[in-house]
Amino acid sequence: MIANTMNLMGAAARRAAAGLALTSGEQRNAALLAAAAAIRQGRAEILAANARDMAEANERGLSGSLLDRLMLDEERIEGMAAGIEAVAGMHDPLGRVLAEWERPNGLSIQRVSVPLGVIGIIYESRPNVTADAAALCLKSGNAAILRGGSESFHSSQAIYQCLREGLAAASIDADAVQMVATTDRAAVGYLLSSMGEWLDVVVPRGGKSLIKRVQEEARVPVIGHLEGICHVYLHEAAEADMARDIVLNAKMRRTGICGAAETVLLDRSAAERLLPVVAAALIDAGCEIRGDATVCAMLPAAVAASEDDWSTEYLDAIISMRVVDGIDQAIEHIATYGSGHTECIVTADNSAAERFFRDVDSAILLQNASTQFADGGEFGMGAEIGIATGRVHARGPVGADQLTSYKYVVRGSGQTRP
Amino acid sequence: MIANTMNLMGAAARRAAAGLALTSGEQRNAALLAAAAAIRQGRAEILAANARDMAEANERGLSGSLLDRLMLDEERIEGMAAGIEAVAGMHDPLGRVLAEWERPNGLSIQRVSVPLGVIGIIYESRPNVTADAAALCLKSGNAAILRGGSESFHSSQAIYQCLREGLAAASIDADAVQMVATTDRAAVGYLLSSMGEWLDVVVPRGGKSLIKRVQEEARVPVIGHLEGICHVYLHEAAEADMARDIVLNAKMRRTGICGAAETVLLDRSAAERLLPVVAAALIDAGCEIRGDATVCAMLPAAVAASEDDWSTEYLDAIISMRVVDGIDQAIEHIATYGSGHTECIVTADNSAAERFFRDVDSAILLQNASTQFADGGEFGMGAEIGIATGRVHARGPVGADQLTSYKYVVRGSGQTRP
Repeated sequence: MIANTMNLMGAAARRAAAGLALTSGEQRNAALLAAAAAIRQGRAEILAANARDMAEANERGLSGSLLDRLMLDEERIEGMAAGIEAVAGMHDPLGRVLAEWERPNGLSIQRVSVPLGVIGIIYESRPNVTADAAALCLKSGNAAILRGGSESFHSSQAIYQCLREGLAAASIDADAVQMVATTDRAAVGYLLSSMGEWLDVVVPRGGKSLIKRVQEEARVPVIGHLEGICHVYLHEAAEADMARDIVLNAKMRRTGICGAAETVLLDRSAAERLLPVVAAALIDAGCEIRGDATVCAMLPAAVAASEDDWSTEYLDAIISMRVVDGIDQAIEHIATYGSGHTECIVTADNSAAERFFRDVDSAILLQNASTQFADGGEFGMGAEIGIATGRVHARGPVGADQLTSYKYVVRGSGQTRP
Repeated sequence: MIANTMNLMGAAARRAAAGLALTSGEQRNAALLAAAAAIRQGRAEILAANARDMAEANERGLSGSLLDRLMLDEERIEGMAAGIEAVAGMHDPLGRVLAEWERPNGLSIQRVSVPLGVIGIIYESRPNVTADAAALCLKSGNAAILRGGSESFHSSQAIYQCLREGLAAASIDADAVQMVATTDRAAVGYLLSSMGEWLDVVVPRGGKSLIKRVQEEARVPVIGHLEGICHVYLHEAAEADMARDIVLNAKMRRTGICGAAETVLLDRSAAERLLPVVAAALIDAGCEIRGDATVCAMLPAAVAASEDDWSTEYLDAIISMRVVDGIDQAIEHIATYGSGHTECIVTADNSAAERFFRDVDSAILLQNASTQFADGGEFGMGAEIGIATGRVHARGPVGADQLTSYKYVVRGSGQTRP
């Protein structure tokens, strides 16, 4: 039953993708703008649908961070609409000549961007992923098959209806964006394992259980967003106020996003100068601190961290803190416990920052800026479908440009190969 | 036993990759130049090893195309050494600033190329893949685990020893290039299914049985080279001599390579003008023609093509020919039977070529040039590890630049996210 439904969706998506590849950027932008307008106009319906999801989530006793991710209000709905408009306002990711050169034999070679084809998006509680993911797929000429989590089912369906209005307004095949209309988890398994004929790539967005499933079951290429165990490293040349502001923002601005910091590392030589200032701000903001022995000795409010804490993505108002013996140990700690997502060094010493940039192998490395900037919108991509922590195809924020492939166009005058 | 051996190799490759990422381009080039010198100096040993492989292949009655792919002579060994030197002479694919921009909040963002990590290469009879693949991996700072086919076992081992000499000469960890020293096919299965911890990507090079295995068993990202069912479409505005030269070269220059043409499509309106000229050249060169009804009616020497012929990669001196009713039918034929590798249109009409470029969804599209130019060397990449027919990560010839990922480096001055 699931198989049949999913294969019909896949075949329809493949047909829609062939048409999408031939649409103009203007046509795709018109669909995006119409979808944004429909979301604004439909905000009462979206809020009502979200209220149903929130009520169910509260009944099921979901955590504060999860509720925060699920919740929509006027501001977030406006943000969604504005995000789609921002995507519409970006350059056309298709038909770009990415490179061109001529060979000594006179062959002229161009590498030209084209859509990936059909993209499956599996996500969990955040309803805005529906809008962001569909908008980026549409912008880049890809057909999308969306499979949102059961928590956000009603919200996502309401948003999806607005997206369909946008497609209709621009005369684009409605199957360009489809949503799996069941919360049956078997649909996810089928999408991961048996849709190779229809799907070019799957983008999972979610927590550990989804990631584990994807790693075990995926038989199609995955642009993977794994955990965000993000570190802020306070180097001995860190300025105390800047360290405090960045740690506070990196942890507490929104605790439920993947770019939220989970661990602070600080140089032993600067611990007495930095720890009290940073810790006081965190504690004032309601954050629990789990520290190593040195941190606990200096900070009565800290709880002793266990080995597990260093590899835990709290997604909550909890942070682990460890004193290190300098940049080598900080880099080693990140290599051991990090998830390759985003790390920050706070330092006034640029040569230390360059060392950190070179030797830390994560998708995003920052000097003197909050890890919460790990976001496609903040990077200027209009929106993002996720942050890729894998190394293949795309890494870091995945925007419309990252959802393209390319073809080579070679112009000759009768050349044969010797 | 295999598992243990493979995991040890994987762990060693991962360690070597961490070191490789920190080597300079000069150091990696020095290793390449030393390897090329070792290949030249070791050509007697390589030829002797190849003679053993060829003798075994002859005994097993391998086809002419396979023997051609397996065979090494002085010229091909020189080509291998020169190919490695060409790779050494290319720009450093690492540390390139692929893009940079500044955000309104003052954050400066750079996208910088980095290695993929550890690359597994599974290949079959062509021994030169050992040199090409290892050279490209080394150039791009990736550790390589090579698994050559049993046919080319001795040749590949001899080449591999030269590569190790190169690494030693440049003081690079010998585990940067490793070769699976068994012809047990279980090693391939293990590489595909159980090395996720150690491998970032697998590149398969080979025929249908390998491809089928990869599709069924791969649990790591694959940069896939599938079949090369390449088409030459003779448009009604094709010049007859050019059509003849291109078809002859595309089919017969080397029949065993993936860029060899397998099907000629020709416009009905030009069939009488083009078919006799093209067919005569093919028949003179010893090529069998399998034609549709129209072709067979015009050409007594042609054999009737079956439905299967249109989707067959002969890799031999056989070509299928079909008369089509114009560019729409040609595009449709390629969409139905093609493998997304390389297609050529022969035409003096540039608007027809633009239509072909836009609507045919293959990795490489050529106008008025032989499909045998589908090659990283011919594209100016120094060498190639294969031609990717997938859409994720890389498409078309995969050179050193395509074996990289990137990281984002963000420089701030204390920015926090509002």
